[in-house]
Amino acid sequence: MNETREVVVLRYGHRPGRDDRMTTHVGLTARALGADRVIFPDNAGQSAETVRDITGRFGGPFAVELREDQKAIVRDFEGVVVHLTMYGEQVQDVAGAIREAVGLDEPDVLGEASAPRDLLVVVGGEKVPWALYERADFNVGVTNQPHSEVAGLAVFLDRLFDGAELDREWADADRRVVPEATGKTVVDADGDSEGTRGDSEGDGEDSEGDGEDSEGDGEDESDEPDDRD
Amino acid sequence: MNETREVVVLRYGHRPGRDDRMTTHVGLTARALGADRVIFPDNAGQSAETVRDITGRFGGPFAVELREDQKAIVRDFEGVVVHLTMYGEQVQDVAGAIREAVGLDEPDVLGEASAPRDLLVVVGGEKVPWALYERADFNVGVTNQPHSEVAGLAVFLDRLFDGAELDREWADADRRVVPEATGKTVVDADGDSEGTRGDSEGDGEDSEGDGEDSEGDGEDESDEPDDRD
Repeated sequence: MNETREVVVLRYGHRPGRDDRMTTHVGLTARALGADRVIFPDNAGQSAETVRDITGRFGGPFAVELREDQKAIVRDFEGVVVHLTMYGEQVQDVAGAIREAVGLDEPDVLGEASAPRDLLVVVGGEKVPWALYERADFNVGVTNQPHSEVAGLAVFLDRLFDGAELDREWADADRRVVPEATGKTVVDADGDSEGTRGDSEGDGEDSEGDGEDSEGDGEDESDEPDDRD
Repeated sequence: MNETREVVVLRYGHRPGRDDRMTTHVGLTARALGADRVIFPDNAGQSAETVRDITGRFGGPFAVELREDQKAIVRDFEGVVVHLTMYGEQVQDVAGAIREAVGLDEPDVLGEASAPRDLLVVVGGEKVPWALYERADFNVGVTNQPHSEVAGLAVFLDRLFDGAELDREWADADRRVVPEATGKTVVDADGDSEGTRGDSEGDGEDSEGDGEDSEGDGEDESDEPDDRD
């Protein structure tokens, strides 16, 4: 979302078959909630394909990488490393410090904002090595309860960006969903049939779907794309 | 989280096998982020068992139900119905109205808070019927991008409760994770070896794991429990 600071999500570990959907959802959540890039283990090619496909249709910029060297990526990362884990410090306690460390904090009236620094957010899949806890600048728990790495990533990114990610605009999209109170309207990204509606700014109006360009066929696929497993 | 208002998450649709992990994660996310109850379709018994098991170990109160009559639950719900969908109004635009509708808004100095009302949050799995869009009081999109129903639920609950869910306390837990900067410490819930640390209030100190009662074996299972699929 920012030209001077890259936010990268690393999915650490992947078991083909069993983890396909979770890894896909980590990638799509990273994209939708403001990260610039996701790195998957090199055995997660199917998930990478799905995330690239969504990016091609719904826009970017967003990069998907397959890499073998998970440990080296973390070790050598030049920037701030956050590791999401249920054993970590509570997100509500450390989000401010993380924002400050990467230069996302608002400067005081007389102060100066920190310089932008890149951020690596590590999302555990398979068991992660203890060295990751030690290398991480912040081990962060979104609650200290067992739940979902996708949920943890989502809440973390929303708090990191303080909601600004929800208003980001998308480039090179083929299509765009028009937010509305009751309806399922998708328009061509460059041929908006509802010219008065901004790309990412809701106007609060209750717009009833007019059926134009609508995929409303009485059924819905919800937020979840098919990842072909 | 509240004695006078129940927040219920309904997982709409479930394909055994393929959806087991996603449904489990919906349930665990609902529990961890402040809902009082989750309802799964009656063919999601395995996911229900996993969520109940986590609740037994890490505490509640949190209820898990298996129900056949998804449509009737939505139709007959006495309270506010929110349907999470990528086609809906943007969460940043409607969260305030939803908080107000269920009595979670803060009253003005001279005003009066709305009466508490129950809330049903519907999370789509398989294709959902068009009637759900029409019945819902709010169709809500956490971004209008395709990503993950687990991520959408997490951000929605965090914004619904305005972060208060992160400080909730757990009853009848066997064990409790101690949040810390570098470590993986789990203590008996009623035999806290670190008496000065509150149940859910981080003190910001960098506590190094002392190894007591620690599960730190150099490996981590991350936030994700094994759901035995």
